[in-house]
Amino acid sequence: MIAEIISTGDEIRSGALVDSNSAHIAQKLEETGLEVVRHTCVGDDPDMLEAVFREIGGRSDIAVVTGGLGPTTDDLTAQAAANAAGVSLAVDNTALSSVEAFFKQRNFSMSPSNKKQAMLPEGADCLYNPVGSAPGFVLKIGNCQFFFVPGVPFEMRKMISDSVLPRIEKLQGGNRNFCMVKTISTFGLTESATGERLAGLTEEFPGIRLGLRAKFPEIQVKLYANGEDEDTLGELIENAAKRVLQKTGKKAFSSDGTPMEAVVGDLLNKKNATLAVAESCTGGLISHWMTNVAGSSDYFLFSGVTYSNDAKINVLGVSPDTLRQYGAVHEETAKEMAEGARRVAGAVYGLSTSGIAGPGGGTDEKPVGTVCIGLAAPEGVKGLRFNFSFGRRAMNKTIFAMTALDFLRRELLVS
Amino acid sequence: MIAEIISTGDEIRSGALVDSNSAHIAQKLEETGLEVVRHTCVGDDPDMLEAVFREIGGRSDIAVVTGGLGPTTDDLTAQAAANAAGVSLAVDNTALSSVEAFFKQRNFSMSPSNKKQAMLPEGADCLYNPVGSAPGFVLKIGNCQFFFVPGVPFEMRKMISDSVLPRIEKLQGGNRNFCMVKTISTFGLTESATGERLAGLTEEFPGIRLGLRAKFPEIQVKLYANGEDEDTLGELIENAAKRVLQKTGKKAFSSDGTPMEAVVGDLLNKKNATLAVAESCTGGLISHWMTNVAGSSDYFLFSGVTYSNDAKINVLGVSPDTLRQYGAVHEETAKEMAEGARRVAGAVYGLSTSGIAGPGGGTDEKPVGTVCIGLAAPEGVKGLRFNFSFGRRAMNKTIFAMTALDFLRRELLVS
Repeated sequence: MIAEIISTGDEIRSGALVDSNSAHIAQKLEETGLEVVRHTCVGDDPDMLEAVFREIGGRSDIAVVTGGLGPTTDDLTAQAAANAAGVSLAVDNTALSSVEAFFKQRNFSMSPSNKKQAMLPEGADCLYNPVGSAPGFVLKIGNCQFFFVPGVPFEMRKMISDSVLPRIEKLQGGNRNFCMVKTISTFGLTESATGERLAGLTEEFPGIRLGLRAKFPEIQVKLYANGEDEDTLGELIENAAKRVLQKTGKKAFSSDGTPMEAVVGDLLNKKNATLAVAESCTGGLISHWMTNVAGSSDYFLFSGVTYSNDAKINVLGVSPDTLRQYGAVHEETAKEMAEGARRVAGAVYGLSTSGIAGPGGGTDEKPVGTVCIGLAAPEGVKGLRFNFSFGRRAMNKTIFAMTALDFLRRELLVS
Repeated sequence: MIAEIISTGDEIRSGALVDSNSAHIAQKLEETGLEVVRHTCVGDDPDMLEAVFREIGGRSDIAVVTGGLGPTTDDLTAQAAANAAGVSLAVDNTALSSVEAFFKQRNFSMSPSNKKQAMLPEGADCLYNPVGSAPGFVLKIGNCQFFFVPGVPFEMRKMISDSVLPRIEKLQGGNRNFCMVKTISTFGLTESATGERLAGLTEEFPGIRLGLRAKFPEIQVKLYANGEDEDTLGELIENAAKRVLQKTGKKAFSSDGTPMEAVVGDLLNKKNATLAVAESCTGGLISHWMTNVAGSSDYFLFSGVTYSNDAKINVLGVSPDTLRQYGAVHEETAKEMAEGARRVAGAVYGLSTSGIAGPGGGTDEKPVGTVCIGLAAPEGVKGLRFNFSFGRRAMNKTIFAMTALDFLRRELLVS
């Protein structure tokens, strides 16, 4: 069965609000095995709403509509649905008692405009709203079952799970289809290089769909599979995932959506090791990421965001001679920063960045996008230099921080 | 003229990704006076793409399409557009030199699949992409001018402002309708409290539409006005903005969309003052924000992200007695941290945070959401305590960091 999603309202149509409802509904519908083929958004315009309902009523099996069920004059969905189905609006007793109960329970007084919310198209089946004043409803328009729910995200979510999905599963009878997704996160390959490494994958694993998503600075490899037997699908997708991991090697850092900072944190935890960081060009982003992980205080001890040379000398003990001889952006300086952070905090590992995020500060020898990374470990200290040219300051900070964490991740994997 | 927006790709269709591009494009198109009547999203399905392009080509004047211009096999937009227009794909020389320049500039080697990105529908007009490998294009399908741009948000944004909007304004000729928007950013009031303070505003300024947008942890007050005379509109919106600033007082921190960190950076710059930070619970977020501002190295000297007590003592010189007597989360500790950061870095101001971001670590006396903030200035040191109850770790870090910067901002305004 194919499904469509319709979001309504001038706020979304005009871009004042990002429509996150449709993504949620699409995920939930696809999990039941429905194929969501299209989303549509239109504003609070009764003719447009009616036309869209008729159009979709003529081509799909299931439609879920959000928004326009409130008490105000720009809430026009019920009337437009009635028009599209060729019926009238009438007071629905289930809907009326649901609205009345909502207000009574909260000791709110019910305004006349709330009564409007109990007017549903004739023949509609009321959907109870346990968390808001607007009831939803189910109505057949053309050959399509339409599910109307409010646009307020938490009301919509509750009604989708409590009322809409069970009814859809009933409509599907025994013919449930499963949809599985697996995400493998990689770092260090471009989108096209990733695609080339995975050439032939869908031929080798028939039934697998492959999607690549650039989620800067990662490239996510997504594997999708649909079918009726959950076990067969699970095996198929796991085998395909193994092949993706073989083909991407160390560029793959997680196969369940775990972000880089949690992968690094996990490796540190397993080794019972601790980390201190010295950041110049990344300006605190590495430590912000690392401390986003709950429980990171177990292994993350300290970061010195040393933007000035004085701070590098006073806090991290970088030698003024090194700074004079090589400058702030150099492997030697990065190595001393990493050693300094490690020593000051008494950590097992010290990781540092020094570079030029831009837009100013670049030279011919060290253009914007240059970053030096230092890694101090019990076995010794290493320094590396990279050059990226993404141009924008925020992107440079992000790729510098990711490169440093990836350097540490690979060290933790072999050490 | 009426416009539509089409987003393409299985990730958005299936709900794996929320479509924020369409909201951005809708806003920008409406600001030029176009009427955006509908958004559509379909997946990477060549027949569906072609059908949607034909459908919209038959009913609208302008369409903006995002996604599907990448180098991989699931990037199908150009072929579908060519089919809908009844033309073939051919190598476009402008597009080819644009792709080649992109790779050359970055010292990347160009893979054969990238050549595909230079294949455009015959008769299409190439849109240069200054920040990515995929060029866009303009193509007439039916009676509608279609603008195709990549789905990567920052590439899309750059191309909309640089290439798409100027072309649309040309198409509109002299009959331009202006839509003006002004955004006033506030911090420290809830959405409903902001709404109550602004009651009566639209009656006092007829022609102004008022929108409130919760962009955690800010509340943005948006003023919209439409009309043909740019000067009249400008005056109306400025007068309404003045009234908003009167009603929100010190809670308003910018009236042109400037983020808090840039407002604080600007105040520091104007005073010729410098800043050092000591962060515990914010884990580097304050320094990450501060260093996102280009030129911040002029006033931002250092942040010590001191997660461990040892780091607080060794790096910032916090007294072990203070930590023993009051604990890490306390105004007295925060004051010593702020003083320590200021002293170590030789900065004019020192700002610190110590608190409990959660999910663990809370007690009855100091529950998750507690944060202590210290501010050391030439005139002396202050400490404050707040309690927030947003629950999630990431939200707590954000509101803690914002509260600290707002404390510094208000100090800079009066000192």
